Amino acid sequence: MSSEVLRMSNMFLRTLRDDPSDADVDSAKLLIRAGYIRKVGPGLYSWLPLGLKVLRKIETIIREEMVKTGAQEVEFPALLPKDPYEATNRWEEYGDNIFRVKDRHDADYLLVPTAEEMFTLMVKDMYSSYKDLPVTLWQMKSKFRDEFRPRAGMIRGREFVMKDAYSFDMSEEDLKKSYKIQRDAYERIFQRLGVKYVMVHAVSGPMGGSESEEFLAPLPIGEDTFALAPSGTAWNVEALTTVKPEDVDYSATEAMIALPTPESATIESLVTTSNELYPRKDGRAWQASDTLKNLMIAVMHPTGERELVAIGVPGDRQVDMKRLEASFAPAEIEEANEEDLKKFPELVKGYIGFGVLGPQSGKDENGKSRIKYLLDAHIARGSEWITGADEADKHVYHAVYGRDFEADGFVEAVEVQTGDMSPDGSGPLSLERGVEIGQVFQLGLKYSKALNLTVLNENGKAVPVWMGCYGIGVSRVMSCIAEYYNDENGLKWPAAVAPAQVHVIATGRDQAAFDAAEDLVAALSEAGVDVIFDDRSKVSPGIKFKDSELLGMPLIAVAGRDTVNNGTIEIRHRDGAETQIVSVTDAAQAIIDEVKKF
Amino acid sequence: MSSEVLRMSNMFLRTLRDDPSDADVDSAKLLIRAGYIRKVGPGLYSWLPLGLKVLRKIETIIREEMVKTGAQEVEFPALLPKDPYEATNRWEEYGDNIFRVKDRHDADYLLVPTAEEMFTLMVKDMYSSYKDLPVTLWQMKSKFRDEFRPRAGMIRGREFVMKDAYSFDMSEEDLKKSYKIQRDAYERIFQRLGVKYVMVHAVSGPMGGSESEEFLAPLPIGEDTFALAPSGTAWNVEALTTVKPEDVDYSATEAMIALPTPESATIESLVTTSNELYPRKDGRAWQASDTLKNLMIAVMHPTGERELVAIGVPGDRQVDMKRLEASFAPAEIEEANEEDLKKFPELVKGYIGFGVLGPQSGKDENGKSRIKYLLDAHIARGSEWITGADEADKHVYHAVYGRDFEADGFVEAVEVQTGDMSPDGSGPLSLERGVEIGQVFQLGLKYSKALNLTVLNENGKAVPVWMGCYGIGVSRVMSCIAEYYNDENGLKWPAAVAPAQVHVIATGRDQAAFDAAEDLVAALSEAGVDVIFDDRSKVSPGIKFKDSELLGMPLIAVAGRDTVNNGTIEIRHRDGAETQIVSVTDAAQAIIDEVKKF
Repeated sequence: MSSEVLRMSNMFLRTLRDDPSDADVDSAKLLIRAGYIRKVGPGLYSWLPLGLKVLRKIETIIREEMVKTGAQEVEFPALLPKDPYEATNRWEEYGDNIFRVKDRHDADYLLVPTAEEMFTLMVKDMYSSYKDLPVTLWQMKSKFRDEFRPRAGMIRGREFVMKDAYSFDMSEEDLKKSYKIQRDAYERIFQRLGVKYVMVHAVSGPMGGSESEEFLAPLPIGEDTFALAPSGTAWNVEALTTVKPEDVDYSATEAMIALPTPESATIESLVTTSNELYPRKDGRAWQASDTLKNLMIAVMHPTGERELVAIGVPGDRQVDMKRLEASFAPAEIEEANEEDLKKFPELVKGYIGFGVLGPQSGKDENGKSRIKYLLDAHIARGSEWITGADEADKHVYHAVYGRDFEADGFVEAVEVQTGDMSPDGSGPLSLERGVEIGQVFQLGLKYSKALNLTVLNENGKAVPVWMGCYGIGVSRVMSCIAEYYNDENGLKWPAAVAPAQVHVIATGRDQAAFDAAEDLVAALSEAGVDVIFDDRSKVSPGIKFKDSELLGMPLIAVAGRDTVNNGTIEIRHRDGAETQIVSVTDAAQAIIDEVKKF
Repeated sequence: MSSEVLRMSNMFLRTLRDDPSDADVDSAKLLIRAGYIRKVGPGLYSWLPLGLKVLRKIETIIREEMVKTGAQEVEFPALLPKDPYEATNRWEEYGDNIFRVKDRHDADYLLVPTAEEMFTLMVKDMYSSYKDLPVTLWQMKSKFRDEFRPRAGMIRGREFVMKDAYSFDMSEEDLKKSYKIQRDAYERIFQRLGVKYVMVHAVSGPMGGSESEEFLAPLPIGEDTFALAPSGTAWNVEALTTVKPEDVDYSATEAMIALPTPESATIESLVTTSNELYPRKDGRAWQASDTLKNLMIAVMHPTGERELVAIGVPGDRQVDMKRLEASFAPAEIEEANEEDLKKFPELVKGYIGFGVLGPQSGKDENGKSRIKYLLDAHIARGSEWITGADEADKHVYHAVYGRDFEADGFVEAVEVQTGDMSPDGSGPLSLERGVEIGQVFQLGLKYSKALNLTVLNENGKAVPVWMGCYGIGVSRVMSCIAEYYNDENGLKWPAAVAPAQVHVIATGRDQAAFDAAEDLVAALSEAGVDVIFDDRSKVSPGIKFKDSELLGMPLIAVAGRDTVNNGTIEIRHRDGAETQIVSVTDAAQAIIDEVKKF
């Protein structure tokens, strides 16, 4: 089966010498310069012939691996009715992030962001018994998000190709099996695509649910931060649990004492004041890490209740509101406002101490602390702190948690830092940036309950179905591959996704070189090797070489003066590994041999 | 290369015994009942696994033929910015027929209805010289139309798969060559797909331009009427030109005379009155076809001018406003209203005659008739008429066109009728109904001028590019195939687009039959034959047979009691052509032989 030959003489392609002014990352610059994509609006891209070939190769690899898992391909419209998304509350939750459409009869629609609802309803429509399960369905389809600020080319676009799969099982145990099948397929997919990835333990995004892993492409341009342990295990920072610190022996700790600290409402001023007025006896200076600041937040429960909660965090650590909020999910949080604080006149701004918080604050009518007091998970039992004395210009010193005060529990409150201990005990964490290219997710019963997807179990009882969801950002993966594999001269595609394996160049004015190149191309095509053939006349060798580097096929073969004079063809690897000079008669086989090694 | 085997035991499929209540045509009913598609909203359909397989097979055939023409595949977003569509005025022209979207920054977008603008701008972006042309680009992509009343399943949907191609040439002559290449490809495509089609001469729809042919699938459920000549040539009724009638010898016609016709403002009353008061001397009765009615219309020119025009049509023919409007394009028309008529007090409602129209009405300041008077093209010079006398209750008799009155020209004004003469002179036309499944169209310079797509010609002068456009309704074609190929038991797919070539059924309680079927399926898959295998246990033979007829694979092979008792397998053609009983050992080869005949 001979392959298609792409001839530069009539290929719909123009390469650009300069970076497009509005492209912000290497992959976007190069994909546009090399004629793979074009921008048609913010976060909206067209596919030129070469770009579409890469996309199709990526899609084919994904499709092959999905078929292997037994998943069945379906497809939904892009334009979807509002009702199912209202039933799951996502019509509201998405806020401005989805595109909403009204038809001529004033009915509401949306452009699909993800399709949990539709898959759930499709299974509900078709299946009714435990005998029908398990089933995994998927589609390869454009998705839409009205990003506030599209960026990084197709990495954060507003219309993008996404593969989404959903599994349907009778039990959580079965869900875990389906999850593993998909997760394993994802590893195979990313390995075949040649994209680097890290599997990151993740918590729920807006999709709800309980267990989840993200596949991140580690790239400095990424918007996601993840924490990597020396063991290779990685966590989304929102998913990271702090290792419980060991108890501290406080038998030698001085007794707690309240002392005047004028104008010390900030951590910085408190440290300065403390070192001036109350220097430590052991000679070392007081540091921010010796202080305990108590942050007041408002927790907004789904019931509508607004609860004031105090969070005790070491003074040297920044609060990470996203991590903190994850601890309260599905409730949302924000910093307490004046009105919240007014309800508790015992809270002295800038000097809030444990004295009026948690178990120390007394019980309300439900037997709970008047003000719930949670400590950041880094705080060890027995550790010693300077903290507010609940009185203006006064702090307590040598306050020991477990001796002088108690709390209602722990919470993940502060930003993860390089050097924090890995949860798996393998050593200190490092913080890295990455781009999310895939996610596997145990949705549980959220969607089946919201949309009433039940099947009859073996006892004839209707039970909700356990769901998992599995996504790959297909066009985003392509951008990440381009972001990894390039140099100052252009793209360097891995063979699995390159538009062609070989870029054959005919140069010079001698027809013999063009004829030799033509024969080589014919032989390669015959052997099923995908070829780009630069057969342009009246284009200089310099431009042809530059274009071949910019376009980035893994192999470049040149027929030129040496072909005419010495009967040889030069074969180069785009990644610079090696150059071979082979005879015209051996060239096709030499290239086929190289292709086989990919 | 072994093919994929679809096992009914785990395929995501449920067949329905009854027609869905809201499906209005056979194809929609059967595609839903057989589990190929599902409706998710008005004009919006999801693809189930079997449906997607048919769609992909159709797409593959189209893609193969497009590649053969040298056309290059690209792809645009579904969500497109307003600006290009405003430049061509289509943002306005489409009216309620497109879906409009606002993003979070209040910018205007639309869901792509067709993509002339985007293709034009893409070529403008990439190309600049005559050396770059010709080029033909295409995409296979969902399109969106906000149909007032979606109907006939995917035949008139609101989101549908469409292949659209655009050619770009230096001259009208080159455009005609590109047009022919695409037109020929379309014939090959529809022939390979097995869909019946008629090529119909067409005029412009909202796309503008000059030359066009439609590919209609002749089906009674179609919304388009076309006129078919005995020669096989066909015309869209809007495109049909009336054969100029021969002049009539009026030397023996009586002199014109005005006569009282009380209360005869309608054709029917006029005929009755005429027969009562003024019977013909030759004994035959006056008929509606003897009368000439003068219809007043308002022509709305693109300049904003509103012109009153009189149209003279035989009293026995209905006016076809669409055909009439086509004669005035790009102007639009409507029936004149009271206000229009008030400006010309000489017009006596119900009794308007030629006396105040056309050349008889005198000239205006531009030397044109005060009221333009056009005659329907069926009216012969020398023919004799009863028509209004421009006075209440009075008509003129024996008025001869060319003797007693003149007009400003001819126009295609009346509905085409069965029996009208073919323009090619091959005999009387018959009127048929069809579904438009494709269109080839010489756009000319409309879009290149509106969007300023020029290239430098050989003399270094910037000239606009000649464009053609070529569309296929891909999901619509699938529906038309289903509409043709079915019977009371279900679908009957042509082999080229069937999800599988063979439906193998194992029946009964004897494991030996299942084992034989399993071996047969393995052998067929090995040979690359696509197979659906009904391997369900505990499902009755009756249901399995019914399902196989409903699903509609071209071949059905049954392993059952006869397999166990006699070592035979039954092979049937779904179209009922023949049944073979073959030995188990010969079955695979017998099926492979049948498949080769497709």
